[in-house]
Amino acid sequence: MATAERIYGVLLSETMDLKTYYSLDFGGAAPDVCLLNPDEVTRPEDIRFAACWLPGPDAFAPYPNLEMAMSVGAGVDALLNHSGLNKDVAVCRVRDPHQAHLMAGYAVHEVVHFEREFPQMARNQVAANWDPLPIRAPADLKVVVLGNGSMGAAIVRALAAVGFAVSVACRRPPEDPIAGVTYFTGDNSVAESVVGMNVVINTLPLTAHTENVLNANLFSRLAKGAWLVQIGRGEHLAEADFIAALESGQLSGATLDVFRTEPLPADHPFWQDQRLRITPHIASDTMPHIVSEQVLLSARELLSGAPLSLSVNSAQGY
Amino acid sequence: MATAERIYGVLLSETMDLKTYYSLDFGGAAPDVCLLNPDEVTRPEDIRFAACWLPGPDAFAPYPNLEMAMSVGAGVDALLNHSGLNKDVAVCRVRDPHQAHLMAGYAVHEVVHFEREFPQMARNQVAANWDPLPIRAPADLKVVVLGNGSMGAAIVRALAAVGFAVSVACRRPPEDPIAGVTYFTGDNSVAESVVGMNVVINTLPLTAHTENVLNANLFSRLAKGAWLVQIGRGEHLAEADFIAALESGQLSGATLDVFRTEPLPADHPFWQDQRLRITPHIASDTMPHIVSEQVLLSARELLSGAPLSLSVNSAQGY
Repeated sequence: MATAERIYGVLLSETMDLKTYYSLDFGGAAPDVCLLNPDEVTRPEDIRFAACWLPGPDAFAPYPNLEMAMSVGAGVDALLNHSGLNKDVAVCRVRDPHQAHLMAGYAVHEVVHFEREFPQMARNQVAANWDPLPIRAPADLKVVVLGNGSMGAAIVRALAAVGFAVSVACRRPPEDPIAGVTYFTGDNSVAESVVGMNVVINTLPLTAHTENVLNANLFSRLAKGAWLVQIGRGEHLAEADFIAALESGQLSGATLDVFRTEPLPADHPFWQDQRLRITPHIASDTMPHIVSEQVLLSARELLSGAPLSLSVNSAQGY
Repeated sequence: MATAERIYGVLLSETMDLKTYYSLDFGGAAPDVCLLNPDEVTRPEDIRFAACWLPGPDAFAPYPNLEMAMSVGAGVDALLNHSGLNKDVAVCRVRDPHQAHLMAGYAVHEVVHFEREFPQMARNQVAANWDPLPIRAPADLKVVVLGNGSMGAAIVRALAAVGFAVSVACRRPPEDPIAGVTYFTGDNSVAESVVGMNVVINTLPLTAHTENVLNANLFSRLAKGAWLVQIGRGEHLAEADFIAALESGQLSGATLDVFRTEPLPADHPFWQDQRLRITPHIASDTMPHIVSEQVLLSARELLSGAPLSLSVNSAQGY
């Protein structure tokens, strides 16, 4: 039996070796926090918390005394929607201040890459062709960001800094609106915000309301030849509708960083589709040392009975 | 002889058809301003102003009564350094509010493209390879912007919005410093600012002091494997030093948008160098309708004797 001076946790992931990747073997540096892989656990009843990334369907079953489940990334849908996780288990997540900046840089890169036709410029370089491509004023490119959480808001700030005409769809009015940005709020904000847009950037959390939100109806409201930047969750994209929008030219292409099945299978047709830019769920990432620090922080809060500073509002789903 | 109700100007460029590109044939829309190509001028003594982009060495010689020369772009070095332009001719330039945003988007694109290794991600897509590349926190990427004019300042704002560690080299302390940005000021600011930098972005104006500023001494101060984004003027780059820095690996590569000879000749080795990203002087551009409006504004100011609102401080050189 563990003493009150020590807390035991388990690492649960179907896809990652969390202990190695995030240096979660604290050892002598934190003798009060012991994190184990499932095959190292001899007394499941001692396990009081789990650090998780895509845990399997039965991952939580062996641990009757779990009090907290922590996501090592910003997305908590895999925990909140997990049928094997009791509702009285507190859900926490790592909050990495670098993560929103990483995602903002990725998003601005993809918008400028599309708008300035960098792929065509690369072909022109190979051909030693100096001919400049047409340029439009940044203020004439209409970009909508779906979601105004920490990720969405950082993207909006960065897009505004390079002069695009930015709109945002969010449930509630923003606490800290940015001058010149148009905010659409309320239950119909997504449908209202996308009308006539040249680029749509999805950063919504995955909830029952947002699954398949990127569908034929949404695509039909965009400007002809629009570009999609999909950095939410794979389940947001209605794939048959998406293919149809590409085929019709309603979408000229898309940047896809998230997929229904990850890793994206090697034989999936998305990989070789010239209209698509595929990246392996790296638009943003938590820095390993931040994960390590925050898992330790949360474990010690639990051990001392302090409030969990990184807990998630499970009613909202993010 | 022209009456006081009408003013005559001439279009001077060795590389562009300015009248067509910028719609400078005002016709009935502005009967008080007549802009002619040199071969249309029958009375050179009537010409009171010139709208210019890279005028030839003898371009100004036929016009004894020139009072103003206006650059259709942000760069005025081709006018201020022109040996055929009398020093008592006022120099003006188009000031396009979109231009700094365009350049900021281009610069952020190039920095993120380098930092996140998008070329390697594109190769991984072709190979259906999901393996993620290493990620570092944006705050660990040190980026220096040389110059803090309207272009440099816009780039600094955009880089700060995506979380990079930004330094700036500028002659004078900034009027409007950005929180978290490090400013180096004074005559040695460039040399001091570049120490240990991972990316250097050149936006300096071309003056006698800045020619060949991108030289072996500067490259040696950067972090090993740094990236150069060259969006100033071709004459800033000491090309032999640059090639040596690429060969030694001190620079891992560069984005070059400006060149000593433009268009870059088709047989120039830069085109086919895999370490270089070449674009045809398009990092920024003035929007044609803004050029048209501002040339008309300046011509009318001259006609009415009003102060020239778009004039340049020729002592500073920008």
